[in-house]
Amino acid sequence: MVSLKTPICELFGIEYPIIQAGMAGGATTVELVSSVSGAGGLGTLGAAYMAPYELRTAINEINSRTSKPFGVNLFAAEAVDDFSRLEDVQEILNSFRMELGISDPSAPLSSPDWNKEQFEICLELGVPIISTAFGLLSAGQMARAKSKNIKVVAMVTTVAEAEAAESAGVDAIVAQGSEAGGHRGTFTLDKHPFGAQIGTMSLVPQVVDAVRVPVIAAGGIVDGRGLAASLVLGAQAVQIGTRFLSSKESGAHKVYKQALFDSTEESTVITKSFSGRPARGIKNRFIEEFELAKVEPLPFPSQNTLTKDIRAAAGKAANPEFMSLWAGQTTRMLTHEMPAADIVRTIKQEADRLFKGG
Amino acid sequence: MVSLKTPICELFGIEYPIIQAGMAGGATTVELVSSVSGAGGLGTLGAAYMAPYELRTAINEINSRTSKPFGVNLFAAEAVDDFSRLEDVQEILNSFRMELGISDPSAPLSSPDWNKEQFEICLELGVPIISTAFGLLSAGQMARAKSKNIKVVAMVTTVAEAEAAESAGVDAIVAQGSEAGGHRGTFTLDKHPFGAQIGTMSLVPQVVDAVRVPVIAAGGIVDGRGLAASLVLGAQAVQIGTRFLSSKESGAHKVYKQALFDSTEESTVITKSFSGRPARGIKNRFIEEFELAKVEPLPFPSQNTLTKDIRAAAGKAANPEFMSLWAGQTTRMLTHEMPAADIVRTIKQEADRLFKGG
Repeated sequence: MVSLKTPICELFGIEYPIIQAGMAGGATTVELVSSVSGAGGLGTLGAAYMAPYELRTAINEINSRTSKPFGVNLFAAEAVDDFSRLEDVQEILNSFRMELGISDPSAPLSSPDWNKEQFEICLELGVPIISTAFGLLSAGQMARAKSKNIKVVAMVTTVAEAEAAESAGVDAIVAQGSEAGGHRGTFTLDKHPFGAQIGTMSLVPQVVDAVRVPVIAAGGIVDGRGLAASLVLGAQAVQIGTRFLSSKESGAHKVYKQALFDSTEESTVITKSFSGRPARGIKNRFIEEFELAKVEPLPFPSQNTLTKDIRAAAGKAANPEFMSLWAGQTTRMLTHEMPAADIVRTIKQEADRLFKGG
Repeated sequence: MVSLKTPICELFGIEYPIIQAGMAGGATTVELVSSVSGAGGLGTLGAAYMAPYELRTAINEINSRTSKPFGVNLFAAEAVDDFSRLEDVQEILNSFRMELGISDPSAPLSSPDWNKEQFEICLELGVPIISTAFGLLSAGQMARAKSKNIKVVAMVTTVAEAEAAESAGVDAIVAQGSEAGGHRGTFTLDKHPFGAQIGTMSLVPQVVDAVRVPVIAAGGIVDGRGLAASLVLGAQAVQIGTRFLSSKESGAHKVYKQALFDSTEESTVITKSFSGRPARGIKNRFIEEFELAKVEPLPFPSQNTLTKDIRAAAGKAANPEFMSLWAGQTTRMLTHEMPAADIVRTIKQEADRLFKGG
């Protein structure tokens, strides 16, 4: 008999095996993170794009709102800029800028490299859980996190990546299926330029069979059916992004949320046009026109830095055609502006009913 | 409480909600189909490429081996040839032919159009279940199947396709997730040139929510965990292809089976290079070199007709580099040469244990 009280609940100190994904870019407000954790799930601050002082403030704020454990999600990839094909890319982006009325198209040509500093802040403030995407903590970072009793989680998209994560000493692994919204967690991009795209149904049991650490299923999971199915596949928890994007506490822009509600399972594509790394989002004019131009985006993080002013202006203008509308493939099942704590409770109750009947 | 005795078991007259996929091309031997049905699942003859007399013989043979229900899978798409870009494609294929020592490279430039005749044979011989890929039966065919009490099943890859199938009067719908091996069932190819690629975890509950007819989950399902997870997602049965390809009774070539056993979740790609329609198979030299040439394959069925001699010669030479090695994404979990009846029983028992404990 499958139970919702999996060992990972004890490991993380949470009541329910429901983890809110650490989505970078402002959606994971301190309200969202603390509400999810307060309701017995695990909230995660998507901190990858946060300046050090912002991260420090946010962690302190979450700590003041809840005594429950929460996670901080970082990118574990070096931020090495490469603007060598700048002119080709700018030619496309400048047409978007003109349309958005961006007066000064000269973005600063340097990406911040906050990874190491972000990690130090997490260590200093003793956050309960650090999770990474795009790669693994260094051996030194891993040892220091362990010495502070911080649990470390890595996202993977293949069995080989899961094995590498386990060897590096992680406490748990997020197996991210192709259904997932936002960036592919793939760190073998040389082998999979558009990210490995293994479906959740396929990836989860194969990762479970390959490693001994607990596996967290991610990708396409929105409700209690997805939680129950994931546990049946051998996962010990689920990580959910898009559903929490649609919550009341989410920091997602109003028109972004509306685009989620208007979308279907056919709406998303995987694109590198916004950030230089493959990510799943709702197809809009930015993606279509960038891809039509047949110009390879700059690598991450340079493409991301370069498109920042466009995404910001689109936000100000409430124009979803030029925003990155990250979304998974299960948007028909989203609830509209449900409080995050209710989302946690609803998913838990739905899964309970499936296992226990009634 | 989820149960293995779903309504579709009664509808189809089967004991367990386990359907062997009707894979075209010779893998679904009469031994395989009758073994699966004999064990309480639903065997399916992959008849799409079978000449009318072959189909008739096979159905009679299955009937002589088992009194249990079985299905016949057909392609519901018009076989309209288009050889207008023949020379470009032949230039690539001829280099393969030279390597394989094919002396007469002139394949007959006409694809057989057996769909209607195949349907009539199914009707005449009263096969219990007809399933289709690539589209739906015509209204006339549907009415005639119903009048003979034949159950009709359609494969879909999006919610919109599921709604179209339900409107057309099908008795059940196969929701084919992106993990699935072989041809994408997509019939809205204008919208999705490489097939809709919605993961099983995402597609199944969204289709279940959209239609009233029973939904059969397909894509990435290999064992009892996959069956149990699918039922939890709201499906009433699973359709399994790759696992049965690896069975003792499968007609798959020895080197094809070996390629399945040697593959991982990273091995497959979706390609149109063999048939002109998108299909998932293990990447080999044929796929790599055809795609490197940047020549668009001819449309289905012309590309399929054109590559037939190459696939046949590769089979004779036991050379997997030029065979279509259709496979799903869950090949790490395959069993080697297990009898099909044991596969059915094992999957059923594994799912039972997950639901009942023990």
